[in-house]
Amino acid sequence: MELNQIYAPIVDDLSKIEDSIKKVGQVDFKWLAQLLEQSLGVGGKRIRPALTLLSGHFFNYRLEYLIHMATAIELMHTATLVHDDAIDKSFTRRGKETIYKVWGTEAAILLGDYLFAKAGVEVSDTQNVRAIRLFSQTLMTISRGELNQAKNSYILNQTREDYIQRIYGKTASLFCLSTESGGILSEAPEGAIQTLRQYGNDLGLAFQIVDDILDFIGTEKELGKPAGSDLTQGTFTLPAMLLNERYPQDNPIKRLFLDRSKKENIQQAIEQIRNSNIVEECYRIAGEYRDSACRALKELPTDPAAEALKNLADFVVTRRN
Amino acid sequence: MELNQIYAPIVDDLSKIEDSIKKVGQVDFKWLAQLLEQSLGVGGKRIRPALTLLSGHFFNYRLEYLIHMATAIELMHTATLVHDDAIDKSFTRRGKETIYKVWGTEAAILLGDYLFAKAGVEVSDTQNVRAIRLFSQTLMTISRGELNQAKNSYILNQTREDYIQRIYGKTASLFCLSTESGGILSEAPEGAIQTLRQYGNDLGLAFQIVDDILDFIGTEKELGKPAGSDLTQGTFTLPAMLLNERYPQDNPIKRLFLDRSKKENIQQAIEQIRNSNIVEECYRIAGEYRDSACRALKELPTDPAAEALKNLADFVVTRRN
Repeated sequence: MELNQIYAPIVDDLSKIEDSIKKVGQVDFKWLAQLLEQSLGVGGKRIRPALTLLSGHFFNYRLEYLIHMATAIELMHTATLVHDDAIDKSFTRRGKETIYKVWGTEAAILLGDYLFAKAGVEVSDTQNVRAIRLFSQTLMTISRGELNQAKNSYILNQTREDYIQRIYGKTASLFCLSTESGGILSEAPEGAIQTLRQYGNDLGLAFQIVDDILDFIGTEKELGKPAGSDLTQGTFTLPAMLLNERYPQDNPIKRLFLDRSKKENIQQAIEQIRNSNIVEECYRIAGEYRDSACRALKELPTDPAAEALKNLADFVVTRRN
Repeated sequence: MELNQIYAPIVDDLSKIEDSIKKVGQVDFKWLAQLLEQSLGVGGKRIRPALTLLSGHFFNYRLEYLIHMATAIELMHTATLVHDDAIDKSFTRRGKETIYKVWGTEAAILLGDYLFAKAGVEVSDTQNVRAIRLFSQTLMTISRGELNQAKNSYILNQTREDYIQRIYGKTASLFCLSTESGGILSEAPEGAIQTLRQYGNDLGLAFQIVDDILDFIGTEKELGKPAGSDLTQGTFTLPAMLLNERYPQDNPIKRLFLDRSKKENIQQAIEQIRNSNIVEECYRIAGEYRDSACRALKELPTDPAAEALKNLADFVVTRRN
């Protein structure tokens, strides 16, 4: 199913979030307006804003607050990407040139900070201290997770539990924020808030596992950046872990991590993973998280949003970009 | 008067803020704990936390909330310094090695982000949406100001009004936040909140003008970094503006901005400014803002904090570091 079909129950409201994001770029400082246009204009799938709206649909759907929240989350997400690109020295993202590429490290750092700040203003317009606090806690989790990833780059001695913890920090925590805040702002009972959080968590883990698969099997056109970029940064993801588990004596991951100048191992790892059933095994694991996310949905009241969230979970594990 | 004398009415409560900042460093991720210790441990004058406590002293002094606010402000301030050092590639700050120097750009970006996030959690513990919103708005002003400074580096065509606007964004906005939030959290009447903000604004401008003077007349030992660092970054500050106004045909600032490789002009500018009455003139302008700040204090109720804020204003324009 296509995203626009899945988003049907909230399609008008999603466009209000688009407008709200567009408004962020309307500032009277020309260079800043340019930077905002370049970083926010590229769109993306807007999964996180959709999650907030859909999660807010089960109880008291207070659209104004949900729009502020979803805008804040999208701005925070963009800020982390702008900073990541400066850290990784990435030239392309979603097929476009990055802020780092066009304007350099200084602009990337400061634009990211500005976006964090604007996100903070947006989230405070929800008038809900619990949601505001959760927002900042999530950014703590994300930055801590990124530091942890940096610390563990090119390190083979990591378990699958380490990996799951790492992708929770990197991705699932923001999915949790998106769904939990929808519950909080719609005055859902505590049990439903926790159920929504659980759904967001499992969906986020499935999403990131698929992202990590696609980094091996996707084309540059699909990915909007070169394949193998995780290995280029020394990030040890699930497919690479499975390859290393299967050939513990010698494999391209091990060779690359021992000597990161041997870049030919990246291509070799990609080929070896593509020609094995590792991809299938990773999809099976992602599918388990998808199933767990969908089970959580059964605890929520009957609402068109439940069907949309189920379809979104299916989309996440079948998408090609 | 020494700072510890000035801080007398709040000295015990300031030490509670020290404890609160120290607690931020107690995390179970060793590298992060190290980074936090290095960036937060260096102390500084703690003027901003003192401003929040003193500003909260005139009405309902709710210490718990003021401590959260002051901690948040100090964390945000530290985060901006950590990012600035990465941008300016600075090796020393307050006489110590910077995060950038020891750990590089990646750690500096991510630690700064973590500190912003932790600051956001602290400020949400004030439970006051107005204070929380003001906090994020201030960070927007600061990052926008930094982008503006980057855009205008090595540009001679700037007026004194541009300069004042720039140092408002860079410094005075955070002083405003410190004093205004003290008013908000102590349930001050609106008039008093605005008076406190005005005081913070004028004090902040005086503070930054003196900072910009010290960058020309201070010793490396006093400054904790080499003198002339503003010119090294192409930042056009008040003393340099006055020199350029006096010798519009030719002067070391003009020569440096035309060809930034000609670093010998930095030392020449320092000497020419030191041997003129430009320093005196800049102190006179800083003194006017100090006077304006002190006039605002007369509109506040009688309280020991008023005397402390007056003395702090005097300290700010006479300090040597």
